Parts: sequence; structure tokens; C-alpha cells
Amino acid sequence: MLDQPRVQRPAMADRSTPLLFNHWYIAAYTREVTRAPMDRWLMGESVVLYRKNDGVAVALQNRCPHRSFPLSKGKLEGDNIVCGYHGFKFNTAGKCVQVPSQATTKSSLDIASFPLVERGPLLWIWMGDAKLADPAKIPDHSWLHDPGHSAVLGYFHVKSNYVPLHENVLDLTHFHFLHGADVGALSFVEAPPETSVENGVVKVLRVDRDTIPPPHYARMAGIAGHRADRISEAEVPSPALSWARATIVDREPMPGARKDYHFWIMHGLTPVNQNETHYFWANVRDCSVGDKVIDEWLMPRSAKVLSEDVEAVQWCQEIWAQTAPERYGELNVASDAPGVQVRRVLAQHAAKEHGGAVAEMDHHAPQ
Amino acid sequence: MLDQPRVQRPAMADRSTPLLFNHWYIAAYTREVTRAPMDRWLMGESVVLYRKNDGVAVALQNRCPHRSFPLSKGKLEGDNIVCGYHGFKFNTAGKCVQVPSQATTKSSLDIASFPLVERGPLLWIWMGDAKLADPAKIPDHSWLHDPGHSAVLGYFHVKSNYVPLHENVLDLTHFHFLHGADVGALSFVEAPPETSVENGVVKVLRVDRDTIPPPHYARMAGIAGHRADRISEAEVPSPALSWARATIVDREPMPGARKDYHFWIMHGLTPVNQNETHYFWANVRDCSVGDKVIDEWLMPRSAKVLSEDVEAVQWCQEIWAQTAPERYGELNVASDAPGVQVRRVLAQHAAKEHGGAVAEMDHHAPQ
Amino acid sequence: MLDQPRVQRPAMADRSTPLLFNHWYIAAYTREVTRAPMDRWLMGESVVLYRKNDGVAVALQNRCPHRSFPLSKGKLEGDNIVCGYHGFKFNTAGKCVQVPSQATTKSSLDIASFPLVERGPLLWIWMGDAKLADPAKIPDHSWLHDPGHSAVLGYFHVKSNYVPLHENVLDLTHFHFLHGADVGALSFVEAPPETSVENGVVKVLRVDRDTIPPPHYARMAGIAGHRADRISEAEVPSPALSWARATIVDREPMPGARKDYHFWIMHGLTPVNQNETHYFWANVRDCSVGDKVIDEWLMPRSAKVLSEDVEAVQWCQEIWAQTAPERYGELNVASDAPGVQVRRVLAQHAAKEHGGAVAEMDHHAPQ
Repeated sequence: MLDQPRVQRPAMADRSTPLLFNHWYIAAYTREVTRAPMDRWLMGESVVLYRKNDGVAVALQNRCPHRSFPLSKGKLEGDNIVCGYHGFKFNTAGKCVQVPSQATTKSSLDIASFPLVERGPLLWIWMGDAKLADPAKIPDHSWLHDPGHSAVLGYFHVKSNYVPLHENVLDLTHFHFLHGADVGALSFVEAPPETSVENGVVKVLRVDRDTIPPPHYARMAGIAGHRADRISEAEVPSPALSWARATIVDREPMPGARKDYHFWIMHGLTPVNQNETHYFWANVRDCSVGDKVIDEWLMPRSAKVLSEDVEAVQWCQEIWAQTAPERYGELNVASDAPGVQVRRVLAQHAAKEHGGAVAEMDHHAPQ
Repeated sequence: MLDQPRVQRPAMADRSTPLLFNHWYIAAYTREVTRAPMDRWLMGESVVLYRKNDGVAVALQNRCPHRSFPLSKGKLEGDNIVCGYHGFKFNTAGKCVQVPSQATTKSSLDIASFPLVERGPLLWIWMGDAKLADPAKIPDHSWLHDPGHSAVLGYFHVKSNYVPLHENVLDLTHFHFLHGADVGALSFVEAPPETSVENGVVKVLRVDRDTIPPPHYARMAGIAGHRADRISEAEVPSPALSWARATIVDREPMPGARKDYHFWIMHGLTPVNQNETHYFWANVRDCSVGDKVIDEWLMPRSAKVLSEDVEAVQWCQEIWAQTAPERYGELNVASDAPGVQVRRVLAQHAAKEHGGAVAEMDHHAPQ
Repeated sequence: MLDQPRVQRPAMADRSTPLLFNHWYIAAYTREVTRAPMDRWLMGESVVLYRKNDGVAVALQNRCPHRSFPLSKGKLEGDNIVCGYHGFKFNTAGKCVQVPSQATTKSSLDIASFPLVERGPLLWIWMGDAKLADPAKIPDHSWLHDPGHSAVLGYFHVKSNYVPLHENVLDLTHFHFLHGADVGALSFVEAPPETSVENGVVKVLRVDRDTIPPPHYARMAGIAGHRADRISEAEVPSPALSWARATIVDREPMPGARKDYHFWIMHGLTPVNQNETHYFWANVRDCSVGDKVIDEWLMPRSAKVLSEDVEAVQWCQEIWAQTAPERYGELNVASDAPGVQVRRVLAQHAAKEHGGAVAEMDHHAPQ
């Protein structure tokens, strides 16, 4: 018996790695999806999203199999959607239940229906093999929707592949250079965090003892002027999600006051296609809960910092598109350790889903 | 002797079928062409159109063979056109009659001249094999230009291949769903018309006896409130043209009044290239002739309905371009019978002009 | 031993001939380059330009090797440039001198530094093999920067390959047809100039004795109404530069007055990439030196004429892109003799730099 040659894949995912379908992704904020059908490109496919009369959300392939008309331009009839061109009718399972000029229909006219799960403000979609669509695989984000938390939510349409966005999020050294001294301390650059990988989940930990917490955390916690410990954690539980949590432990608490305050930032990354990404973000806290003044102060501040990230990855994508990979590769250094781990995990997912063997590492960090 | 393998062509034309050059197409409305040279992309070629001093229209390849300068940016010298870059001069036959820096010219500097026929408001062009350019092949449209008729004319530049526009025109079921109940009766959807093909001309017939004619027909005929027979005919005499005629036979005519009223709609479809189409349309009637009030009422109404068609086929082209044909095909149902016939005829034309054998039908309607 | 087949190259360069890197090109006007880093695409590469503290200009590859971030978005630290994403620091030789998260760096993180020479108002760059970057190869243009001359300078970003711009410049017949009778005498068209090639430098000469010089020359020379000899010379010393000089010899000089007046026009052509060109132009004179009224009169006049050239070559590029070279070639006539020589020289440069043998001439002028 002869060994079959296997496709050799790069050890690390990059902008050209095939998209990973067998994962849950954020399709939309739940508030976006109503009885008015909306279209959204997700993972290279046009999808129509709407709600049934009972409020449950539906996601169907947004293409009538008859003449490719986008169903989002049609209208709802009860829970079914009717094509706006020739009236083909589809139920929420994607089954074609009526062809106006015929008494019968046929399974070849059915379209894909995508599993959805609504969790807090997020609507998760599964666009891969439906048999594998287990809601238990949705990464936990209870801090976003459980009581006792407040969040501001935002969105960017990013003209970049999603992999560099994952890297950007995990990388602390860009804070100082891209966002400026008020966001990123230079000490972050010099002392790289600890990185670990467990079951495909990349985790990053950094602890700063007895320090002055950033002013915006101190303000939200109401502990301005206090010294505190700061524990920074980040986790990438899936190709679709990355989050970071800062725990501020007040070293000078008022008598009877709480000591621990938590702040999360969520990065929900859903490929539009190979070269563009939906970026759903949230800033979450377990203090100043329900404080609208804090929300209104936090929202533009968060949006501005993240817009700098978006701009940066878009600039990189532009230069890359004109010059790489034919002429230049990318090189890794010490601070890339967390990003490299994510890229390795994504490469392993790609090999699992699309076949092929992952190469041994060809780039070792640091260089 | 071995049989030569022949290219196998799909049984039905689609967006990727090679364009058909050996047919007359509408190049322009005659009123558009003047002594000021104008350029227009037709069948993937840039063409310059202008009129001779005696008013006869001329169509030449809009590319100087010297350095590719568009002749439409040059100027006329009598009946000749002079390139605006280096002064190469061409006569109305496309012959290069002067090269400024030389005493002589050469036949390699000649450009294509395209046969034109002016008929009523339409200027027809032949861009294929000039030996075959017989004006007798221009499909009859005497109802557009003969006395006793009034017409409103319009134009769209459509970002879609021309084949789906042919289908759209022949399909009655989209009236109700795309244009709304005031334009398309649901009964149209349920009772498909009769289709026939004679010598490559697709014909569709539908008769509704003793019915209430659509209000806009009744208004133009001046028979509001009368019952009538309604005979709907459509014909596709060539890849370039499709027309429909409604005959309204008044069942309650006033004493001595005429009984029959006719209404035509013309769809002149000229490929800009494989993915875009010039759509010349006309609404014609043999009643209320010369009535400007009717014209002004009819014009925006017709334009609105047709703009919905244009929008629909453009949406389909967008979805198709992103997803098909690599991933999805198109499927046919009962109401597609007329469109399928047109697509078969176009496929036969393509095999005749570009070679290859047409496959047996691979899609049977209805499914 | 078998002969190796060699790539056969066309005898004349055209829009698809590979760019020629081993030549000096104008990167910018010196006044454009300051302490604020600027990016410019040159020869298909993004380049960042800035000045050191001592005023000397620097050109580096505008792409951080880490994640492709454009260095022009970063900032200067003394003479070094710091990437705006993760703080990688590069010196003026392109050496990576600091990686914030590491104690050390590595030569694989170095970027290209391009030799620059500042000469008068022009900043010249060498983007090919650095070993060959001899400043003595910069074509002489002392008339632009030596005392006793005045110049107006301008710039166009042209959406055309640079080869047709070279041809346009050398061709006298387009003056009359493109720019109108006030710019180009018809006699230019009829009597082609003499062309010669020496060591790869194409030279064109044309002498008109005892003539009325063009009014704008007469005005600048202050000899309106005088008869004069007019000696027109043009030279293409490199792929990057073309210039023309008109010498007006006053046949009716005032007693004691000078007789000779010189007027240059410079065409600096630097490929942005294969399909676009930076066009740096200058109008230079050795009379009315320092006269601002003349400058302000000359500037818009020159810019208008050259904008007509730019428009023409862009129109040609558009038509060519849609139709050639698959369907149509370009044909040469008598007036193309100078342009053909330049295209031959460029083809020889391409063979030298990119390998392959230049074909025997396949197009002979005139046709």
C-alpha cells in the first residue's frame, strides 16, 4: 500500500489560509435582526436574517436557486420568506414550499438554513457541517450578558483578513506605539506576558503588582488614586472570538468596600470573506453598572482606540496585497509569541477541516 | 478517418455564452447621433457614431490603429473623421486616407466600418461578418415607426448580461411579485401561456376572454369600465429584440366605435459586453395617437416598472457573480418555458457562430 | 553542448515591457521631502522619503518586515524611523536597530535603503542593483539648476505606462492635432526631424531658418516681431528623462544685444508601476530670468498643454487595456521614427536587465 501524499500546510495561518467553517461565529447583534429581512455576507456567502412571528431568528442562504435573486429583497409571509422576483416561497428550514407556476416543488429547490443561537446581545451562526453544530461549542461570554454587568457595543467593517486582527488583539506592544502613551505603557513592551495553549485555546497572562491602574479603570471602579494589583488575561477560545479581562485588585479599599473589579473587552471576528472582516466589539465592566454617564464617556473613547487598530491592519493589508507574499514574508519576534500560538491553532483547524498536514514550524520566535 | 471531437455547448445560453455578432442590434436612438462624434461600447468594442453632411449615419471602430487613440475625441472633416492625436484621417468606409507625416497610407491602417440601417427612431448596427449583413434580417417593428402609432421611448444601462433580460421580459410570473398587484394579476402566474418556436423565433400567446382590461389600457383606449377580450402575444425575433403586444377587444363598443386596440412594449437589448447591456425600450399604442398628456402620464409609469426589472436582474447578476456558476446553477420551473426556449435558440445561434455542438437538454422544465 | 533557448523579446518596448530598475529616476521634487515622512509608490514599490536632521534625504522601503505596516505612518526619532505599529526602529541604511520586545535584532529584519542624489530641484533615486548606483549616470540637467536660468515646475500622476509618454514627447505631429494650431505648426508634421542614436541616447534635431518664432518664445526673449532661426533639439538620455531645447537665434538683434535664447522643457518619467507614471515636468529659460510675471504667465499655459498630453495617453491606455494586445497591435508611420528609436533602446535595456534576446525588428517604419 502506498502512502498518499498529503498537502503540506504552513505551520501558521496567514491571510490566505482557507476560512474555518466548523465554528460558531457572530452573525449580528440581536438588535439588528427584525421582521424586515436583512442581508449580510458571512464567510463568503450571502445570508438573509429575519425573525419569525414568535421572535426566533432565522438565517437562510440569500439566493433563490431559481435565478439567484437575493431573498432579502423579498418579503415575509408569516414565518416563510417569499422571493421578490417570482414568488418562490421558503420555510425557515430552507425548504422550498411553493413555486407559483407549479402545483409541486422539489428538493433541488431547497436552500441552506443555518443554525442560529441567540445569547445575550449576540446572534451566533454555524455555517459549516450542520451535524457538528453543537451550541455547547459557543465560547462562554456570560460576562457580556449576565446580570451585574454593563457593556458598550460597537462594530467595524474591516478591509483585512481576520487573522491579523486576532494577532493585533493579543499583542501588547502595539498599545504604546499605535495608541500612544495614555493607552499603552512602555513596560508592556519590555516584559512579554506568559502564553499557554490548552485544547486549542490560547491564553495569555500578565500580572502587575502594586501599581497605579490606568485612569479609566480607576474611574469606573471609583478608586482613583489607590494603588492596586492588575491582572491582565486574554483568551482566544475560537477563530471567532478573542477577549481580554483586566482584574484590578484595590490595595487600599475603603472599609467594607469590595476589592476586585473586572473589565472585559470582546473582539468578535467574523470573516465577510477572505479579505474582509466583521468586527463586533464590546467593552464590559462589573462596576458602575447601569451608569449611562460612564457609557457615554466610554463609548467614543473605546471606538477611537479600536479605530486605530482597524486603520493599522487595513494599512498592513494594503501593503501586503501589493507586495506579499510573492516578494516578502512576515517575520516574528518575541512579542509575537501569543499571536504565533493563535496562528498555529488556526493552521491546525484548517488542516482538520480542509485536509493536509501542518508543517513543522518554519518561523521560530524570536528571530 | 477519425471523428473530430466538438466543443460541447450547454443546451441553454446563460451569462457566459459568447456574444452573437451575426445579428442586427440597436446601436442608438437615431436622435442621439449627430455631427458631434459619440462613442459607445457595443459587443465589447468601442464604436464611434456620427452623421455625414448628408445626414447618413456612420459607425466606425473607435480606435486609431496607430496608438489606440479614441477617434470619438477627434473631429470631422467633411464626412471623414480625423484622429485627435496625430491626425490620421479615415473615410466612412474605415479606410485610412491620410497619414500626416507620410505621402502614402496602407491598408493595415484601415479600421472596421460597421453597416448601419436607420429605421424609425432606431439605428441598427451589424458588428459580425459584413458579408451577412442583410437589412432584411432586421426584425420588423413597423408598429414603432409607421403612422397611426404613438410611442414613448426610454433607455437603461444595465449591469447584467443580456440573457437574463430576455428571460425577464418573457416571464409573466414576476409581474405580480416584482411589480405588485397593480401591474401583474396573480392569475398570470397560475395559467402559463402557450409557447412555440418557429424558425428560431420564440412566440408566446395568452388569451383572456371577457375580462376587465388593465386600467391603463382602458384609459388609453377610452373604454374605461367596458368588459373586453385581452390577447397577449410576445415574440423574440432575434437576440437583439423582444416585444409584446396586447390586443384589447372591446365587448361593449359604442355604436360605430372601433373594437380593437393595440399596445406594444419593445425591449431592445444590445450587449455592451458580456456583463452589461444597453436596454432600449418603447411603449407604443395605436390609440390616443399624438396625445401628449397620455405620453407624459405613460412615460414615468413605464420607466418605473422597467426600473424594477433592471434592479432585479442587476441584483441577480451580483449574487451570481459572487457565487455561481462554480458553486450553484440555476434551476427551471414551469413558468420558465418561454425563457428556456429563448435560451435554447440563443445556444443554437452560439453553436452556429462560434462552433461546437449543443448538448441535449440537461435541465427539463418543470422540475 | 546544447544551445540554451533564450527568451525572445520584442524589438520595441511597449506597455508590457518589464520596468527598468538599473537607472536613476526622479523620486520627488526636493521641496516635497521634509522631516514628515511621506510615502510614494515608485517602480511598484512603496517607498518612504524623509530628511535627516542635517537635511540629507533618505529613502527606505516603506514596509516594516514584521507585519507589513507602512513606515510612513510612523515617526522619526532623530535620523531613525520608528514603525507606528510595534515600534521597530530602522536607521537610514535600513538596518533594524531596535525591536522593542527583544534585546537583540537580526539582519533579516533589515529593509532596503535606496541611494538618493539631490540635484537642483530634483531628488533622484536608484532602485536597482545598489552596486551599480553611480551618480555619474544621472543625466545632465544643469540647465535646470545652474544660475542664469529660471524654471516653472509641475507634476501629473498619469494613468498610463511610461513608454507612450516617452513617445508622445518625441513626436512633433501631435502638436498640431492635439494642442491646436497655436502650439503646433502643420509644417512640423510634414517635415520629420532627423533622428540619431549614440550610446543608447536618442537625439532628434530640426532646424528652421529665418522664420517667425512662436510668440511665447519671442515674448520671453523680448524679440517680438523679429525673424529668427529656430533650432529644435530633443534628447532621451535615459528611461527616466526626456528633454527638448529650442534655440532661438535672433536675426534682427538690437545693437549690442545677445543673439541666442534657449528654452528647455523637461519630462521626468518615473513609473509608479507598470500602468501608471509620475510625470515631473519643467519649463526652463535663460532669458527673463527671475521674472515672476513671466513665471505666472507661463505656468498655467504649460500645464494646460501638458494636461492635453496626459489626457491623450490616458485615453489610449484605456482603449488599449480593453482591446489590445490580444486583438490589435500598434502600427508605426514616418513620424514615429524618434519614438521607435526610444522603444528599441528601452527594449535593449530590458534584455540587458531582465535577460533574453531582442528580436529583429518586426515593425518597420514607415508602413
